[in-house]
Parts: sequence; C-alpha cells; structure tokens
Amino acid sequence: MEHWLKMRAQLSGEKTALYFEGKSFSFAEVYETARAFAMRLSALGIKKRDFVGLLGQNDAATYFWIHALGLLGAVPVFLNNRLSASEMNYQLADSGAEYCLFQDDFSEKAADLNVSVQSFSALEALSGAAFTEMDLDLADVASLMYTSGTTGKPKGVLQTFGNHFFSATASMLNFGFQKERDAWLCVVPIFHISGLSILMRSLIYGMPVYLERKFDVENVASKLESGEVTHVSVVLTMLKRLLDRDQEVLVHPNLRVVLLGGSAAPASVVSDSLERGFPLVQSFGMTETASQVVSLAPEEARAKIGSSGRILFPSELKIVKQNETDRDGEIWIKGPTVFAGYLHNEEATKEAFSDGYFKTGDIGYLDQDGYLFVSERRSDLIISGGENVYPTEVEHVFLSFPEISEAAVVGEPDSEWGEIPVAHLVKRSEISEAEIFQRLKKQLAAFKIPKRLVFHETLPRTASGKIQRHKLKTK
Amino acid sequence: MEHWLKMRAQLSGEKTALYFEGKSFSFAEVYETARAFAMRLSALGIKKRDFVGLLGQNDAATYFWIHALGLLGAVPVFLNNRLSASEMNYQLADSGAEYCLFQDDFSEKAADLNVSVQSFSALEALSGAAFTEMDLDLADVASLMYTSGTTGKPKGVLQTFGNHFFSATASMLNFGFQKERDAWLCVVPIFHISGLSILMRSLIYGMPVYLERKFDVENVASKLESGEVTHVSVVLTMLKRLLDRDQEVLVHPNLRVVLLGGSAAPASVVSDSLERGFPLVQSFGMTETASQVVSLAPEEARAKIGSSGRILFPSELKIVKQNETDRDGEIWIKGPTVFAGYLHNEEATKEAFSDGYFKTGDIGYLDQDGYLFVSERRSDLIISGGENVYPTEVEHVFLSFPEISEAAVVGEPDSEWGEIPVAHLVKRSEISEAEIFQRLKKQLAAFKIPKRLVFHETLPRTASGKIQRHKLKTK
Repeated sequence: MEHWLKMRAQLSGEKTALYFEGKSFSFAEVYETARAFAMRLSALGIKKRDFVGLLGQNDAATYFWIHALGLLGAVPVFLNNRLSASEMNYQLADSGAEYCLFQDDFSEKAADLNVSVQSFSALEALSGAAFTEMDLDLADVASLMYTSGTTGKPKGVLQTFGNHFFSATASMLNFGFQKERDAWLCVVPIFHISGLSILMRSLIYGMPVYLERKFDVENVASKLESGEVTHVSVVLTMLKRLLDRDQEVLVHPNLRVVLLGGSAAPASVVSDSLERGFPLVQSFGMTETASQVVSLAPEEARAKIGSSGRILFPSELKIVKQNETDRDGEIWIKGPTVFAGYLHNEEATKEAFSDGYFKTGDIGYLDQDGYLFVSERRSDLIISGGENVYPTEVEHVFLSFPEISEAAVVGEPDSEWGEIPVAHLVKRSEISEAEIFQRLKKQLAAFKIPKRLVFHETLPRTASGKIQRHKLKTK
Repeated sequence: MEHWLKMRAQLSGEKTALYFEGKSFSFAEVYETARAFAMRLSALGIKKRDFVGLLGQNDAATYFWIHALGLLGAVPVFLNNRLSASEMNYQLADSGAEYCLFQDDFSEKAADLNVSVQSFSALEALSGAAFTEMDLDLADVASLMYTSGTTGKPKGVLQTFGNHFFSATASMLNFGFQKERDAWLCVVPIFHISGLSILMRSLIYGMPVYLERKFDVENVASKLESGEVTHVSVVLTMLKRLLDRDQEVLVHPNLRVVLLGGSAAPASVVSDSLERGFPLVQSFGMTETASQVVSLAPEEARAKIGSSGRILFPSELKIVKQNETDRDGEIWIKGPTVFAGYLHNEEATKEAFSDGYFKTGDIGYLDQDGYLFVSERRSDLIISGGENVYPTEVEHVFLSFPEISEAAVVGEPDSEWGEIPVAHLVKRSEISEAEIFQRLKKQLAAFKIPKRLVFHETLPRTASGKIQRHKLKTK
C-alpha cells in the first residue's frame, strides 16, 4: 500500500494534521513538506531500508524529518536526546546507521557522534533529488528504538508498520473514535513510543496532533480546559503536576482520555484524579508492544484501583507461574502489536519469545475479571519521570571505574519523579563523590545518574553470590 | 491469535452481541452456545479448514452455526437460500464441501443437495465431541461466497480474517465509533457480504447487532425512530420502501449511518433521503472487497450526488483508461480487504489481478477531489433488490434449451427493485413461455428469472459477432 501520509493527504488533505506553537499544518501541507525534505535525504543517498539516526525533539522540524524518512522508506533510529554521546554512538553503531540527522540545538552533542551528522538547517539548504515513494508493507520496519534490559546492553526494538496499525486500531476500539472531534495532545517525547504512537494514530485516524515542545503545566492545563483536545498522554510526574497546580484544572467535557503510561498510579493519585474529573486511563505497555497493550477505561478506574486494565483487542495475555499455586507470574503478551525482534541480536530475540508470546519480564496477576495487576517490574526497572532506567546498565558504568568493586542501583520512591535511582557502592580505593559524578556525566544520560550514593563495606548477596537489590530498597 | 468471539467473550462478555426477535444474547452466551454447537460439528468429524455448506437465513440459529464453524476453524460456504438446488450443488461441489448444514425450513431444497445434509434441529440433538479451538491467523480463510461474472460460472471468493478485520477498521475510521452506543441493524442477508460484514464488525468492535429475519418496513421504521440502532445497511429497494411509507419515518438523532450498498441511488432518492433526515451513506464494494471499500459520508452526499464516495483507508483505487484522454476507465482496487483469490480457479484469479490490483470490471472515473463515480457496471451486471444477476449466467441457461438459438439478458429500470432482468430471445423451434418459465425455475433462483421475455428474429451483433446488449436496453 502507499505510505499512510500520502493516503491522508489524498483523503483528508484539508484537515489539520499538526498544531505546533500557534501554527497549523494540514495533511496536504505535511505531505508536501515531508516530500520536499525526503528529496534532500535522497540527494544524500539515503534510501529505503536504511537506518538513519534522528536526534530531535518535540518540534515541527523533527516531526517533518520523521515523515520524510517515512516517505523514503528509511527507518528512523530514534535517539533519546538526553542520552550521552557515548550512549548514542552505541545505538548508531549497532543499527549500522551511516547518517544522523540532528536538530541544530544538539550540535555540541552531534559533534561527538561517530557517523556523518547532518543538521536540520544544513539539510534544508540542500537541493533535492528525485526518489520513489515507498510501497508500504505492514511487515516492513517503520521505526527503531533502543531499550536496555537485564544485560545492560541496549537492544534495538524493530517496530513494524503492522505493529503501529494494530496498536492504533486497538486504541480506537478501546476509546472509541469521534471522527470530527478527536485530537491528541502530545507532551511526551516523540522519540519514545508513547509520543511516536500518537503521530502514528494521527496518520491512521486522520486526526490532529497538538505537539508541545515540553511539558509546561500552564500550557497543558489551558489545553485541557479549552476543549481543543480529547486525548492526552502523560507520565506520572506530569499528572501529579497537573493535580498539584495552585489553581484546579477544570477539565473540559471534550477531554475523554488522560492516558497514563510508564508506571501505574498510586491509589491516592487515581482517586484524586477521578474526583477532579480527569478521565484517567491507566495502561501497561512498552517499546516492544508499540505502546499500550493493556488499558483500563476511566469508568473502570475506581472499581479496579491499582490495575493497569485489560488486554486490548486482538492481543492476548497470559500469566506464566512457576508453581500452579502462585498468584503471580511473568506477564506474556502475544499479538499483532508485538515487535519483530531485536536488531542484529538473535540471541536476545530468541530469549524474549516463547510459544509465540513475548515474555515481558514483568511480574503480575489477573483478577477474576481479567484485569491485570503488575506487581514487580522487569529486571528491577526504575521509572523516573517517564524514562526507563535499567539498574544493570548503570551498575556496569560504576564497575568500569577501577576504584569501585561492587555496585547496585535501586529505585527510591520520589514525590516528584515517581522514582529516582540510588547507587549502593563498595570502594576498592579512594575516589570522591565529585569525581564519580563527573565521570558518570560523560557516559550516562542525566536521568540515569543516581541522585544519591550510599557506600557500604559489602553488599548483601545470595548464597550463589547474586546481589540482593531488594534488601537495599527503601520501602 | 485466538478467535475473535472467544476474545470478545473475555473482554466484553456481559455486553449484548445479538438481539433477535425480542431475545438478547451476550458475547459470553454467544460464545458458550457456539462452543456447544462446534462440539456437535466436531462429533461429525468437521475440522479446521473444511469447507462446509451453510443454507440458512437471518435468524439466531444460523448466526450461532456461523460462529460454531468459526470456532472450529471450518469455513462456511454461504449459500444464498434463494438459489435453486442445482445452483447450490454447483457451489458445494466446487468447494469440495462434504456437509451442508441447513435451517429446517429448507428441508425440501436440502433433499436435492448432493452432499451429506444436516438439519439444524438434528444437529442440536447430537452429542458433542471435544475440539481444539482454532488459532486464528489473519491470512486464514474465514468465509467463502460465490459470485458469478463474465463467464457465467460462479466463482468461490476466498475472504480471509484479515479482509474482514481491515474492512471493519476502515469502516470505523470512516464513520467513527461510539463504544457504548453503536449498534447495527442487519436486515440484509447474512449469507451476503453486506450482512456477514455486520456480524464481523460486531465481533471486532464488541458491538450489538439487531438481526431481523426479513426486511419489514414497519419494524425497521420503529428501530430507526427508537434510537436503539446507530447504523443500518440497506439496498435501494429497502430505502425506497422507507421513503414511500405512508407515515414519514422520524429518524432518531442516534442514527448516524444508513449505508446503501448494491447500487448507487438516483439523485432524487438521495435528496429525498437527506431532506427527511436519513444520514445516507452511498458506497461501492463487492464480495471480492469484503463489503464497502469506497464510501461517501452523509455530510458529503449533497455536494457529491451520484458519487459512491472516496476510497477507504488504507486501500487504494485507480482508474485504468484505455486512452489517456478518456474520462472513464476500469476501477482497480488494492488493499488489505481484497480477497485471497477464487477457490480452485487459478485462471480466473490470474485474470482478476494485475500489478497487485483487483480489476473490478466496473467502469467509472474520479473527480478532481478523488470521488468515485461509477458509470457502468461489470459485465452488464443487473442489481435487482440488492441481488446480483449476471446476464451471462442466465443466458447460458436459455442456450441450454434446444428450442432457443440466441439469448441476451439485460436490466430494465424498475421503480420497486431498482432493476429487473429481461430476456431477449431468438427461437430455433417452437416453445411456450409457460414451458420456458417452468424450466428456468428448476435451474435458477427466482430473482434471476427474467420478468419479461422478448422474442426477436435476430439479435444485434458487432462485426465480430458479439451481442450488443446495450442496444436492447430500455433507457
């Protein structure tokens, strides 16, 4: 089939696709701009199936370059702009990208990247070359996003057009769809699946996106009050800021869905949200399932506090228990939104799947009505301000310092960020905290850097020598 | 994935799936009944991928047997209950079906079928046997429906689960979806794609269907006035009966879509419908595209009178002209709702496709806004009361009579049926009209039998000897 953007330009050409900083762009305009941009990429020799690094942010230019790559059939490697250059270099090298397109604001970071870097402004000045618009197949890879995990090494998650299509239709089946009214406010990063999935829904539904450069509580509050938007995706930190705002947010009746991703909300936040009229929808999903795959509807939220909801049609979920009598087990997901595998990593891919199911690594249970309760997250995952922090990845950095002999990173509850990472360390020789933080900054994104360091004589370990992270956690 | 009915029983178990003659059945009840029915089919030895004849009607029992076959993974061969036994035998033989399930009312016709026939009542009395519920793959064949065409020999259209899924989501994208309100009134036959597609949408959306045994104008009017249903599919004859009703139908604001299939409405009917507040949606589609694939929205109807609308996302349409300067050309369709081929008929399948497109055989053009206008139908297709009548098929029956040397069947406009078939014949030897009609009744469904016979000395032919049907048509 033709690329969805082209179809939308033909079917809904006059309809608004994007609102950004007071400007609006119709689907026809987005298509024409993305086409012109794609011609410039074509002039560089970028073509179908090429992986291309994209270091952008929530702005119109990044939005257009995403779609330009899409029209070419090239696959954006979505770089989290908070990562360090060395983290980005790992992902670029792993993906085999030859180019990285970057928003001019990131020129300093881009200078440290080991591929051919192209600023958005320089690209716009290029002359274009003709290209053949891609023939889209649902099995084709649409996007690549890196996620870490138990091993600590980031893995490239191959998301297909089919993954995005079925995710978008599953969301529509769950929330309904008002053709002439629906509009989605995007304050989550578009380099994350939470944000990218909004752009995909926009193309598939023919629906406007209100894209915000960053989460500004006043700005978001005014959008929720004006009735312009019907849906908004948030992480816990954003929701709490909206609830904690001095003046109560008077949500407009048009607002149907406040979709909470990242982590389940504490009971107090749920009840507080509902009392204030926020149509809160809790969810469960990840990069590997192309966003939410389990979701709770607002009308169920009060009855099922603590639950992430029910599996979305037509995916399947099962809990795989170690013993028949256990309540909890690992959450396994099967369905058309599950990713196509980890790039260049057959071993990790093989390990991640069993019997057609993706083994999420998260632990939970289903109640008698089929509602999922997540009780423990994969590999002690820490979610801080909506960003995933994998302890193993951070520990590996500490252990690369000659002065550190043991390291364990755990999450600590935090009223602002949900959780913050805290490091428990054993020193081999003297090193100052200042020196440690200086070294960490070079290698890790700021959100991954532990907020506190705790020094021990020794760390608690199991008989087999494995560090017992749970013993270090503040409850 | 699991069968959609099973998923719906889990996700929307308590929601009503079916209303029929004052009774309602939840998705959980439909699933349980269909499971029990499937066990009886399993006892007969019916299994996954078997083609099984189904001679039913719009009633709860037929609905349950359709779903029972679905759970088994067996493929219903949907027999039009108005066909003659010889027509049905052709389809059953071609499909390789060993069994035909029939509604008890059709026992007389069933007695003439050449396969093992099983009445619904006899089946219900059987003991069940265990079976494995199918694992549904979108590429699997879900249904088989026969359609005739230029050759006059019916061809089995293989419709996959994917075809039905994408058709249902395309419809949702076009009409929107109100999760807690939408309900579809089904007065078109469920052995046709127009009716079956409603049952499929019901499973996929988790939406109730109001199934009606037949089109009763009073009954339908009351449903459109009560607000119980939001959508109804009709053919032109039904729409006209609603418009011609003594007392005007006061449509409830809940009614969002009156979907007209089969043939485009004359301008007078469109304006009459819109003035009376019918949210009329014209469409274009066929068995091979799993129902509507082009559709006009109510708000566009007045501006685009005569148009069938625009292609539905994410399918594609192109007009293939003989000469660049022509306005009209053949309508070609590509996309995920296009059927998987004609069963056991590679030649016809090959002929029907080109460059990934399905060549509909219909002729039309696109205006500057991308709206389709159908100007001439495939192989002089006659649409009478929503049923397709292929002239070639009827002509072949005439030519099998030794007394008839030439035959041409054409459509004639009719205020009640839209069109009626009329036969133009040349006799070789004497035969009475009564004798002709008696023979036709044995071989053809009543709706295919010409309403008038016109005798000629000779029929108009082209230089190459082809009959010029258009010269015989009453304009």
